[in-house]
Amino acid sequence: MLRTHTCGELRLSDKGNTVKLTGWIQKVRDKGGMIFIDLRDRYGLTQLVLNEQNGQQEVIAEARKLGREFVVQVEGTVLEREAKNSKIATGEIEIDLSSITILNPSKTPPILIEDNANEGEDLRMKYRYLDLRKNNVRAGLELRHRLMRETRNFLDKENFLEVETPVLIKSTPEGARDFVVPSRMNPGEFYALPQSPQTFKQLLMVSGFDRYFQIVKCFRDEDLRADRQPEFTQIDCEMSFVEREDILSLFEKLVKHIFQSEKGISLPDFPRMTYADAMEYYGSDKPDTRFDMKFVTLTPLTKGKDFAIFEQAELVVAINAKGCANYSRKQLDKLTDFVKKPQVGAKGLVYVKCNEDGSYKSSVDKFYSQEDLKAWAEAANAEAGDLLLVLSGKDSTTRKQMNELRLEMGSQLGLRDKNTFSCLWVVDFPLLEWDEESKRFHAMHHPFTSSIQEDVHLLDSKPEDVRANAYDMVINGVELGGGSIRIHDKDIQAKMFDALGFSEEEAKAQFGFLMDAFEYGAPPHAGIAFGFDRLCSLLGGSDSIRDYIAFPKNNAGRDVMIDSPAPIAKEQLDELGLKAQ
Amino acid sequence: MLRTHTCGELRLSDKGNTVKLTGWIQKVRDKGGMIFIDLRDRYGLTQLVLNEQNGQQEVIAEARKLGREFVVQVEGTVLEREAKNSKIATGEIEIDLSSITILNPSKTPPILIEDNANEGEDLRMKYRYLDLRKNNVRAGLELRHRLMRETRNFLDKENFLEVETPVLIKSTPEGARDFVVPSRMNPGEFYALPQSPQTFKQLLMVSGFDRYFQIVKCFRDEDLRADRQPEFTQIDCEMSFVEREDILSLFEKLVKHIFQSEKGISLPDFPRMTYADAMEYYGSDKPDTRFDMKFVTLTPLTKGKDFAIFEQAELVVAINAKGCANYSRKQLDKLTDFVKKPQVGAKGLVYVKCNEDGSYKSSVDKFYSQEDLKAWAEAANAEAGDLLLVLSGKDSTTRKQMNELRLEMGSQLGLRDKNTFSCLWVVDFPLLEWDEESKRFHAMHHPFTSSIQEDVHLLDSKPEDVRANAYDMVINGVELGGGSIRIHDKDIQAKMFDALGFSEEEAKAQFGFLMDAFEYGAPPHAGIAFGFDRLCSLLGGSDSIRDYIAFPKNNAGRDVMIDSPAPIAKEQLDELGLKAQ
Repeated sequence: MLRTHTCGELRLSDKGNTVKLTGWIQKVRDKGGMIFIDLRDRYGLTQLVLNEQNGQQEVIAEARKLGREFVVQVEGTVLEREAKNSKIATGEIEIDLSSITILNPSKTPPILIEDNANEGEDLRMKYRYLDLRKNNVRAGLELRHRLMRETRNFLDKENFLEVETPVLIKSTPEGARDFVVPSRMNPGEFYALPQSPQTFKQLLMVSGFDRYFQIVKCFRDEDLRADRQPEFTQIDCEMSFVEREDILSLFEKLVKHIFQSEKGISLPDFPRMTYADAMEYYGSDKPDTRFDMKFVTLTPLTKGKDFAIFEQAELVVAINAKGCANYSRKQLDKLTDFVKKPQVGAKGLVYVKCNEDGSYKSSVDKFYSQEDLKAWAEAANAEAGDLLLVLSGKDSTTRKQMNELRLEMGSQLGLRDKNTFSCLWVVDFPLLEWDEESKRFHAMHHPFTSSIQEDVHLLDSKPEDVRANAYDMVINGVELGGGSIRIHDKDIQAKMFDALGFSEEEAKAQFGFLMDAFEYGAPPHAGIAFGFDRLCSLLGGSDSIRDYIAFPKNNAGRDVMIDSPAPIAKEQLDELGLKAQ
Repeated sequence: MLRTHTCGELRLSDKGNTVKLTGWIQKVRDKGGMIFIDLRDRYGLTQLVLNEQNGQQEVIAEARKLGREFVVQVEGTVLEREAKNSKIATGEIEIDLSSITILNPSKTPPILIEDNANEGEDLRMKYRYLDLRKNNVRAGLELRHRLMRETRNFLDKENFLEVETPVLIKSTPEGARDFVVPSRMNPGEFYALPQSPQTFKQLLMVSGFDRYFQIVKCFRDEDLRADRQPEFTQIDCEMSFVEREDILSLFEKLVKHIFQSEKGISLPDFPRMTYADAMEYYGSDKPDTRFDMKFVTLTPLTKGKDFAIFEQAELVVAINAKGCANYSRKQLDKLTDFVKKPQVGAKGLVYVKCNEDGSYKSSVDKFYSQEDLKAWAEAANAEAGDLLLVLSGKDSTTRKQMNELRLEMGSQLGLRDKNTFSCLWVVDFPLLEWDEESKRFHAMHHPFTSSIQEDVHLLDSKPEDVRANAYDMVINGVELGGGSIRIHDKDIQAKMFDALGFSEEEAKAQFGFLMDAFEYGAPPHAGIAFGFDRLCSLLGGSDSIRDYIAFPKNNAGRDVMIDSPAPIAKEQLDELGLKAQ
């Protein structure tokens, strides 16, 4: 090694020892007769010192050549610092240098290597290798390493086997778009990159592997939104001979273990909430339960009073913003603007202030008496000082809008603290959802999800009412993972493909191998997959998953550092038997 | 859970307990009044028993419906077995059944689910999900899981961070062919799948990550040979501020740890052998050192005796097959046939038998006296009873041929035992090799490999003599891993690209980001990568890496189970802006 110690290692107990350190020049402070240098590596920062009075002229001359981010090897003696720095682990010592060797100089970096310096996404991404030098950026990837390690250790102890499934698989038109890979050895044919190892993990259950997991890259060729990447990482799991409660309790234990090991937080048991309740009380299948502010249905209380908007509304729904009766006109206007944004899409917002004197002030005073408003307030458990916010319209649309408003109010009221974690399971999702565009049902989860036993008989008559034996883990309004009890019977699987509008031939061409496998002794099985990038961002506290990916792509799917994707040579295309249209 | 215990779990101490088991029917033995059933799962085998005399008629009727590979749930009481079976862990008990529930029936499987049953590769691969039910096949993947776990735990303790590098990267014409991925969002442009994360791990060193590793899928679009897969797994590592000996000793420690934990074998220290010595004594840069049988150069001893073949030969080289003087004419003819095979390509084989009476019998008796042959025997340390095998011709070709013959003799003499492990480091490889076809130098390792300091001055004058600071770990004649001290200086890297025939523009277009990164304080760094599939096969004892891959592809790069690659829909091609030529 070119060093005897790292820059984060030396303590007062090393006093008097001769040491060699290597690292990057963080800062040089030249005080004339004395020079102080901060030397940085992954492990910490160590202060180096040079003093003209000690006859170190030659070394001082070398030190004066140093610039930010030069890589050096230094040798010296550990001294006790006079002015100790309690902020860093090596703050009690400094190194009195006897030599400096420049291992590699550095041009002035185009971005500042300091925590939380933020020069804009594009520059950071172009020079990602410099951005990654920042302690806070590296910390995100260190967190990721620890979470992978803890996940693996936990699952290994629970008898799960990590099995690598193939990356070069087969394209299926179901679901999101596949990335495809032309095959040179089989001209005109293509592999596809997996959107998930779903069918392979099910086959492993048919093989009797009993408990499978994999931390695995998956791929989706989607038009990217802010928090999506074309390649992302999943904790992918599958188990045999289990019932729903077995899966929920085991993976709840996994997440508790991760929170305990990473943050020292002992999470309480996760409540279960039905999809129906989640939509009723939060207007979302991934409710943020860090705060209450549940939806209150006012529909019957608002009818018959000549307020046309509410008269025509399928749903009138309120939330109670505790203690917000003092909201100013301006604040209320801003909330109205918020709900009218195209992303939310409401037509307007009705409010009711519960005044301290017991009276009510509302934007619909003209239509509703104090008695009426009192009845609303009581329904919403609103007390003096509270503010009711009311939306109305078509049921499903209004719930979605109210969900946005509720989250906004939660943020405004400081109820969405990043260091508070509220976890739950959402269960009993619908099996199918109707797609207006294609005029057919889609699988809400995926086509391998089984229905709840007591709903099976509805599959032919009222398919939209069939509940899936599916579950999502939701933390702080983020869907962290989801899964289902799978179909393991060939006939039921065939029926499901039929319900989804697959012809028998299509089903066979795409999933024949799985249906065949079900004929040779497939065990009951179930599974779950967690978005690993999201798990990192949840525990790391940054909203962007990019902060936990070493070399992320931008919103156009480009890696601006290596400049990819890029054109390829014509010879390459020829070998693949392809040409541009 | 549908079970209280696994099929490998119950012991005599569970006697009298009521238990529920699930699993697959391995065998049913119907002895009239009594039925014995072997129930199998991943964890083991448990004997179930039914006795008409105990009034179990109903359960017996159910049992008579069972066939091989049916999936069942059974309930019963743990009994002590009369005839114990010491071969299985549950051999002291059996289960007296009170109920059998068929969870899923099975058609008669097209392959036999028994250890080492081998119905031919094609059938096994088509029904891989059934093949994976065999204990020995599953054992290969359990081994793989353990080796991954032990590798990760070791490297984590050594402060390595596992960092995921991107799978969608950029195509570079250097080296093997890339698989490419057309980008829909950037029409006419392509990603490539990585052949290794080489440049990314070097960038992580520039970022100060200090110690990186990843167990990672890599991709090569090569014409497949027996032991190659288009996707394969690497243990990929990189370290900063290290010298060669640091890398060798740390990764030797890793491999020792793996052998200790998996096989309880404490490996001795790995000797280092130069590439020059490896070629001199074994004719291979990955010598199998489980046995000695080193090459002995006879060239000067064979000249001037009118044997035209040796007269014209650049090299005459022998190996000493100990104790083989009694080889029959037929055996010697077979060896001659062996070396004349097109894969070996020798023109013929000369032998010298060292007879017990001190005389010599050779196929070139006509040209060489007993004195001459004695001199050969002495050079090769051959004693009475030994057999010298001699090849001649062009130096490099003859060494390669002799390597094949040496390995064949090692096998014939039982010197290549799978449970004996002989490890070494081969060092000081040539930096460059001349390619006759393209009339230019190729990097023997890759273009990022540095040269040994004392040879740097030869890069312009005698590039073929420059030794690389590269190393391979070789075990039992298999190159398990290799790496090098990297170039970390922009100018030297540019010089290297120049030596490899890259124009400045080409170097910039393909590796500009790396050369740029070297200008901002790149530390000295080095790394290594291990073929993980090969590591599994070495420890597992099977010659084929496919036995350690859950869903391997065949020699045509096809997955015959899912039938991939396959044509894709025209709409998919249109979206990608591509068409078939």
